[in-house]
Amino acid sequence: MKNGDQVTIHDIARALNIDSSTVSRALNNSPRVSSKTKRKILDKANELGYQRNILASNLRTNKTNTIGVIVPRISRNFFSSVISGIEETAQKAGYNVIICQSFEDFERERQLVETLLSNRVDGILISISMQTDTYEHLRPYLKLGGSIVFYDRPCNFENCSSISVDDYKASFIATEHLIQNGCRNIVHFSGPQINDLYKNRKQGYIDALLKHGLEFKEAYCLESKLSENDGVHFAKKILEMGNVDGIYSSNDTAAIAAIQYLKSQGISIPKDIAVVGFNNDPISSVIEPALTTINQPDFEMGKMASTLLIDKIEKKTTEKELKVLDIELIVRNSSKFKS
Amino acid sequence: MKNGDQVTIHDIARALNIDSSTVSRALNNSPRVSSKTKRKILDKANELGYQRNILASNLRTNKTNTIGVIVPRISRNFFSSVISGIEETAQKAGYNVIICQSFEDFERERQLVETLLSNRVDGILISISMQTDTYEHLRPYLKLGGSIVFYDRPCNFENCSSISVDDYKASFIATEHLIQNGCRNIVHFSGPQINDLYKNRKQGYIDALLKHGLEFKEAYCLESKLSENDGVHFAKKILEMGNVDGIYSSNDTAAIAAIQYLKSQGISIPKDIAVVGFNNDPISSVIEPALTTINQPDFEMGKMASTLLIDKIEKKTTEKELKVLDIELIVRNSSKFKS
Repeated sequence: MKNGDQVTIHDIARALNIDSSTVSRALNNSPRVSSKTKRKILDKANELGYQRNILASNLRTNKTNTIGVIVPRISRNFFSSVISGIEETAQKAGYNVIICQSFEDFERERQLVETLLSNRVDGILISISMQTDTYEHLRPYLKLGGSIVFYDRPCNFENCSSISVDDYKASFIATEHLIQNGCRNIVHFSGPQINDLYKNRKQGYIDALLKHGLEFKEAYCLESKLSENDGVHFAKKILEMGNVDGIYSSNDTAAIAAIQYLKSQGISIPKDIAVVGFNNDPISSVIEPALTTINQPDFEMGKMASTLLIDKIEKKTTEKELKVLDIELIVRNSSKFKS
Repeated sequence: MKNGDQVTIHDIARALNIDSSTVSRALNNSPRVSSKTKRKILDKANELGYQRNILASNLRTNKTNTIGVIVPRISRNFFSSVISGIEETAQKAGYNVIICQSFEDFERERQLVETLLSNRVDGILISISMQTDTYEHLRPYLKLGGSIVFYDRPCNFENCSSISVDDYKASFIATEHLIQNGCRNIVHFSGPQINDLYKNRKQGYIDALLKHGLEFKEAYCLESKLSENDGVHFAKKILEMGNVDGIYSSNDTAAIAAIQYLKSQGISIPKDIAVVGFNNDPISSVIEPALTTINQPDFEMGKMASTLLIDKIEKKTTEKELKVLDIELIVRNSSKFKS
């Protein structure tokens, strides 16, 4: 059926020889229309191909008790733990959770926000993609009364709350730990610098070097999306560079891939090169040598983000909060005393 | 606003002093109404609190280009790989994907089906929870013209297709491998026997024992949800049993937890007890000793399930397919020659 001859409630009314206001009430599930009549009207509506396009009506007047979560990638342990925390809190508060993956792609993220809008979720929890450098795609949802809370990757937009960890401090501690264990030429695996999260991690690394009188060299910052392939690629680069004795990686995925490649090339970890990762993935405690890494309160972060969002949805608060959670360095064999 | 005095399109029409058929067209996004008028109508609708309840109209007449995926738990590597396959195919075909976790809970699964129904997804891909022993909760969705494809955990319901791996054969091969490596007292970590998947895995284990003249003992089948805790609990039980020399676990999670506990108690793997898992989780190749396991074509399964579903949605096929994919045994050190 073409757009031009879309079926209206009046067509349904005519076909059934009843008043179109009755049809309207039935389609709006009004208690003033009997179930029997509703059924008749719905059947006719289906038969004629009546389309109810969901248009922009205010989100707050029509609750669905559903929360949408946008996540870069569910396969990362950090994110699946955050989501477990989100689900636990949401479930207790009577909300269902639907999850969408952006795969670190901005265009996909934009589409997902639209999907969640047309699904009329009551609120959105989002960890922005590595490509995202604008928040304008979120504005239509906010305008319709939706609530948004950022998690993991800190953002400052309108009155949206944000919950993240102290990435600067984490990086500072991780880098200082390598220096205190004798490293002098430390390479940093960094993420996209359009994200505050990766900017903060890089700055913590730089400041720790400077505090200890070491030179910061831009060539020692290897930027990527931190995949396994990136880790292997960087490990090869490090072997070419020759004098590297430490790696501080912005995630465990790339750190572990680098360790496995370096070991295959006869490099001893930590004797030749000490390594520190970020995330405390389960695999980090199982590889040989076990990986020193930053532990984030992932499950807690999910619970807190979910609580912030639900409080906003239920208007228990209108305040904007920018929460920063503390982290801890877990020292394992990949970075233990070189000298 | 109480149900009894719900705002209708006639209230909006009266307030704006225009015809109610124009209001109806505007709310249906008809091209016959100018954008300016639409805007005016929508604003008034919002102001008056007009509610568009989404009622049960046929799903096929109002496509959303969205697929819903119900998954027991995204944190399992197997499921996140399947979902990656689903997303790749769906993306190419122009569908968005929304994911929901049942956490192996039937009641939660039932709620999620309702949520997906009210979100009017064009189709559902579902791996049923370990508790699910009825499919009646899926019937309303099918009745409205929705399409459902089962993945991973095979089901036979109405005209829904299903895609799974050959669990019986996988178990037979895994158990036979342990026998051929000298095991005589093999314990099986089994999952809930209400699921065909775990029934098939148990039967493959039993038949391999019988084929090789070994006795099948029900006491050697330890049934659980196969969590880490279950793995540790079973490892303790095995030490009490005394004579166990092999473990075939229905997943890697429980197998790895058991290995770690047994090692902590001074048991040598595979010399004292050989172990075979199921799933080929990334961690299985990294632990010491590396775990022999069953590799499933997870990513492929996701792609195929997604293709089956989209073909149904787009009416390229009405056929029901019950696909069974092949598996492979990956032999690693946890099960190598005992004698």
